[in-house]
Amino acid sequence: MNKLERASASSLLAAMPEWRHDRQRDAITREFEFEDFMQAFSFMTELAIFAEKHNHHPEWSNVYNRLVITLTTHDANGLTQNDIDFASYADAAFMRFRPA
Amino acid sequence: MNKLERASASSLLAAMPEWRHDRQRDAITREFEFEDFMQAFSFMTELAIFAEKHNHHPEWSNVYNRLVITLTTHDANGLTQNDIDFASYADAAFMRFRPA
Amino acid sequence: MNKLERASASSLLAAMPEWRHDRQRDAITREFEFEDFMQAFSFMTELAIFAEKHNHHPEWSNVYNRLVITLTTHDANGLTQNDIDFASYADAAFMRFRPA
Amino acid sequence: MNKLERASASSLLAAMPEWRHDRQRDAITREFEFEDFMQAFSFMTELAIFAEKHNHHPEWSNVYNRLVITLTTHDANGLTQNDIDFASYADAAFMRFRPA
Repeated sequence: MNKLERASASSLLAAMPEWRHDRQRDAITREFEFEDFMQAFSFMTELAIFAEKHNHHPEWSNVYNRLVITLTTHDANGLTQNDIDFASYADAAFMRFRPA
Repeated sequence: MNKLERASASSLLAAMPEWRHDRQRDAITREFEFEDFMQAFSFMTELAIFAEKHNHHPEWSNVYNRLVITLTTHDANGLTQNDIDFASYADAAFMRFRPA
Repeated sequence: MNKLERASASSLLAAMPEWRHDRQRDAITREFEFEDFMQAFSFMTELAIFAEKHNHHPEWSNVYNRLVITLTTHDANGLTQNDIDFASYADAAFMRFRPA
Repeated sequence: MNKLERASASSLLAAMPEWRHDRQRDAITREFEFEDFMQAFSFMTELAIFAEKHNHHPEWSNVYNRLVITLTTHDANGLTQNDIDFASYADAAFMRFRPA
């Protein structure tokens, strides 16, 4: 999988304002906050299955109801479509956990 | 934990129409259907944590996007408040997975 | 994926004596017992990820420390190599949970 | 839960040489390495259930087959018996994942 072109990455990232782009690492990061740990870990489990299915795994850290996910593609030394796909899936799954 | 009185159980179950009461076993059962396996297992993980936390575990079976949960309290030989609490938690968590 | 030939299935199953073959459904079943629910669900999570990765899902039911897994391939109307692979993975993973 | 006395903490930590003690934060950290992501996340699920059951949650981060766990008790502003218990449970559970 090839690294995204700069223009292409920019337009994709513009559509995902919740993700912060670290230009130095060419990685994106988002923090998710849940009502409690059970919801946070349930969300992590869904993403864990997705990650292994697509053989593309996040860097993530969790403390109680907070989860920080960082995505980049080591083999490509930067962002690829795999990162965008993971981020999109996470965003959609997180919609279910948002306060009404 | 004591078995619920029949009148008390009846009024509680009336408020949970999705659960079917098996009077012979004095157990309640509900089937949950999800979009896919990832969502089903994510839901199961949240309930697994809840179950262990409250030391009250379901009988459950899963095939792909379907999950059947049966609740009863073996020590009480029938339904207790623990079963009602588990069912209520499951119902609330499942709201997040319902089609809009 | 094609259904396994009878002779081929027989020799594969002979190497997995813990799995019971239901000839009517052409499905295999094994029961796993763990020390407690936490270990059982941890094992289930590993298999859930494996299942989705290989797009081949078990029929399974759990009560506390017991897990029953049934495998067959609906599209093939019987056992396929996918079922054997899932069973082998489960057997290997379960080795970690066996009493020493 | 009270913060462990320095002498008591020292003797407990001496028995857990895999955990590194950050004296500034009064927190302990260990890195775990698994064969793959499925095993790492299976282990995390077991600890997630344990954490919620005991209402004591880790700071943890994961990348593929590596998991770093940091333990401290915010309310006590340092290590408590809860941290030692979590670390002991994690160590015992990890024994199952060690190469033979």
